[in-house]
Amino acid sequence: MGIIACKSPSSKMRALILNFATRIHKLGKDDPRRIVHSFKVALAITLVSMVYYVRPFYNGLGENGVWAILSVVVVFEYTAGATLCKSMNRGLATFLAGALGVGAKFLASLFGTKVEPIVLGCLVFLLVAAATFSRFIPQIKRRYDYGVMIFILTFSLVAVSGYRVDKIIELAHQRLSTILIGGATCIVISVCVYPVWAGEDLHNLIVSNLEKLASFLEGFGGEISKLPLDGDSVDSSSVPEKSFLTAYKSVLNSKAMEESLANFAWWEPGHGKFRFCHPWKQYLKIGVVTRQCGYHIEALSGYVDANFQASSSEYTKRVQEPCTNISSEAGKALKELAHSLKSFSYPSKCTIHLQTCKGAVEEVNTMLKASMVGELDVLEIIPIVTLASILIEIVKCVETIFVIIEELSEQAHFKKLKVGHHGGAVASVSDEEEDKGFVKVVIHKITSESQEIDQGNRG
Amino acid sequence: MGIIACKSPSSKMRALILNFATRIHKLGKDDPRRIVHSFKVALAITLVSMVYYVRPFYNGLGENGVWAILSVVVVFEYTAGATLCKSMNRGLATFLAGALGVGAKFLASLFGTKVEPIVLGCLVFLLVAAATFSRFIPQIKRRYDYGVMIFILTFSLVAVSGYRVDKIIELAHQRLSTILIGGATCIVISVCVYPVWAGEDLHNLIVSNLEKLASFLEGFGGEISKLPLDGDSVDSSSVPEKSFLTAYKSVLNSKAMEESLANFAWWEPGHGKFRFCHPWKQYLKIGVVTRQCGYHIEALSGYVDANFQASSSEYTKRVQEPCTNISSEAGKALKELAHSLKSFSYPSKCTIHLQTCKGAVEEVNTMLKASMVGELDVLEIIPIVTLASILIEIVKCVETIFVIIEELSEQAHFKKLKVGHHGGAVASVSDEEEDKGFVKVVIHKITSESQEIDQGNRG
Repeated sequence: MGIIACKSPSSKMRALILNFATRIHKLGKDDPRRIVHSFKVALAITLVSMVYYVRPFYNGLGENGVWAILSVVVVFEYTAGATLCKSMNRGLATFLAGALGVGAKFLASLFGTKVEPIVLGCLVFLLVAAATFSRFIPQIKRRYDYGVMIFILTFSLVAVSGYRVDKIIELAHQRLSTILIGGATCIVISVCVYPVWAGEDLHNLIVSNLEKLASFLEGFGGEISKLPLDGDSVDSSSVPEKSFLTAYKSVLNSKAMEESLANFAWWEPGHGKFRFCHPWKQYLKIGVVTRQCGYHIEALSGYVDANFQASSSEYTKRVQEPCTNISSEAGKALKELAHSLKSFSYPSKCTIHLQTCKGAVEEVNTMLKASMVGELDVLEIIPIVTLASILIEIVKCVETIFVIIEELSEQAHFKKLKVGHHGGAVASVSDEEEDKGFVKVVIHKITSESQEIDQGNRG
Repeated sequence: MGIIACKSPSSKMRALILNFATRIHKLGKDDPRRIVHSFKVALAITLVSMVYYVRPFYNGLGENGVWAILSVVVVFEYTAGATLCKSMNRGLATFLAGALGVGAKFLASLFGTKVEPIVLGCLVFLLVAAATFSRFIPQIKRRYDYGVMIFILTFSLVAVSGYRVDKIIELAHQRLSTILIGGATCIVISVCVYPVWAGEDLHNLIVSNLEKLASFLEGFGGEISKLPLDGDSVDSSSVPEKSFLTAYKSVLNSKAMEESLANFAWWEPGHGKFRFCHPWKQYLKIGVVTRQCGYHIEALSGYVDANFQASSSEYTKRVQEPCTNISSEAGKALKELAHSLKSFSYPSKCTIHLQTCKGAVEEVNTMLKASMVGELDVLEIIPIVTLASILIEIVKCVETIFVIIEELSEQAHFKKLKVGHHGGAVASVSDEEEDKGFVKVVIHKITSESQEIDQGNRG
């Protein structure tokens, strides 16, 4: 144990355990709600297992108490929405299938004892096949997949076991009440004890995706302006180290996550700033355009790594300046949009940056139009021209996101902030109603400042 | 019923039912395996419910027969891999948790009857919390998530119910054997009766994704060459009608699907041309680069809709030709790659198209270098220049896909085809070993022809 240099099996074992412990620690640190969730599940199961320990419960429910434990284990999910979805599905499906099962049993008994099992078998076969097929229908798969599974399960159990067990009504009553005990325990614990809301997670995911794109664009603006100074070698080696240049990659594959969260959010009651019928669909729309924007950024990052090293001509430098502007202003606009989502306020400040953006886009266009390139090598101007055109596409995406968030803020009744005189910064809004979304602003300020003001307004 | 014009509730109802029936019909027609799957599940449940009808089974297992039905319902999944994954997880977890549960019961009984429930409660609480937390560890979540759930379930049931039921060993024995009956039924039916292999689905998904990109590039090549002839208005209106220009979109969001299929494929035994340890990871790599390529294509389609209408200058026309070449040759290369994957043969023919592609890329580069544009408007050449640079990126992606499929064909022992004299088309391969992946070819042929030859070679 004291020998350090020797790699004995015990020290290897210790390293392995240490490594494992570090990873577990990181997992808990990344999202402490995971630890809380683990204890919530343990609490629910311990509570439900009381039906075994407490004499009156046990006498009433008997061995059917297992169904309560079973319900908790399979129904308790990470988010409150998923738990609600599963327990509602389970409760309803059990009730429906139980009733149908009793009906099927009654129907089969009309045929006499000999034919009864055959009729029951056929009924089970047909209903199970139909129900299994219905799980492929997208609308059912999205919201009631688990319910259909439980329906199949309960119907088969009731129809089949009904053949032997005569006290079928009592059994159904016991099963339903144990499932209700289990489901209710899950719902109460997952909604009341440090709840994890799928809706809130979706909201935060969308906000953080917007912020990741914003960081890329802001940071990328800085990179463009530095390029001729740093030269070739520094540029290509320094790029991979900057986390903001790779963080956006997770945005590209967030579709599945967003859709499942939106499905679960549909089941959740109002919580925090979210009402019962919060327009979750709008978040999915934002997600689609965000990914679209992410694809353009992906193209952008690809070109820059490869092509930018060769270009430091006068022309490139001239176009570079408005490009830097477009990139960082688009980034700021996105950051503002993320911020307005986060603070449930109308995205009025974003228009400032969008306006500056559009100004820079026009500047680039004029510059390109004006220059009948007599003195230029086509190969030399390709990178900057490509860059400019991708940036213009990105600005279009940002505008679309702005429009969708504007719609969302109408639907969810976000509070409208008037941009005014604050903390020494002057910003004037003129003809906000007429100017269809774009305000003219005298002085625009850096993002950190405007965030400060927003926080002030909220306080 | 006979009145047609009147929209009575009954005719509305009929329209609704008709609409529903059409959709169901389409669902089954799109993938007839869904119908087969439904009947497979129904068959499995009907078979398993025999334990109730057949006297000797019932006498042996009694009411525990429910567990067999339950196992079938929750374990039977669409693909054989998923079914195997779930049933193995279920079997192993039940065994392990049952043993641990008996151990926990024994440990608790040492403390005397009064303290026993408290000790058991604490044990259940701690183990459930730890197991629930372990479900957040990515490696466990990927392959053993269901197993951990069943572990929690069985452990709680055994530990808790053990407090009342003395015949715990007999119970465990019965539960295990019913689960084995259910699991074995599922495995046998899902593997033997028209099996749906996750591995095969993954293989087909990757192939079809490559084909979608190939169709886009081939079709897009045709679009470029047609552009100056058709003029502005025809171009923008004809684009949305062509399905090959939008089919690639599904490639962008296939990540989640590919990963889940690869996970399930890991559990599957050898089937068809796939061995037991088929290099499924390689497919995921192909998927990553395919999506990368898809992002570039997304950028391509965006630019073409918007920018191409203005450009029909002499210069554009000159660059257009090699671009058309790059696009359709890259498409053909991808189609060849898809084809070689499909036919489990070495992608030797793809190199022909890749070589032509590289030739065209060099042509474009020379053309751009040569033209010190004295007479050109920068704005006018932007679209074609952007187009060219995106196409060059796409060629890089295609090359990477080629390398990965080459690796795959080594690992999975694909058969090597010699390209030779066939059907009137002459193709000569020189120095295949030395030339590191690229063959020089005298005459290259259109894709449909080379596919014909491949099929000839395979026969």
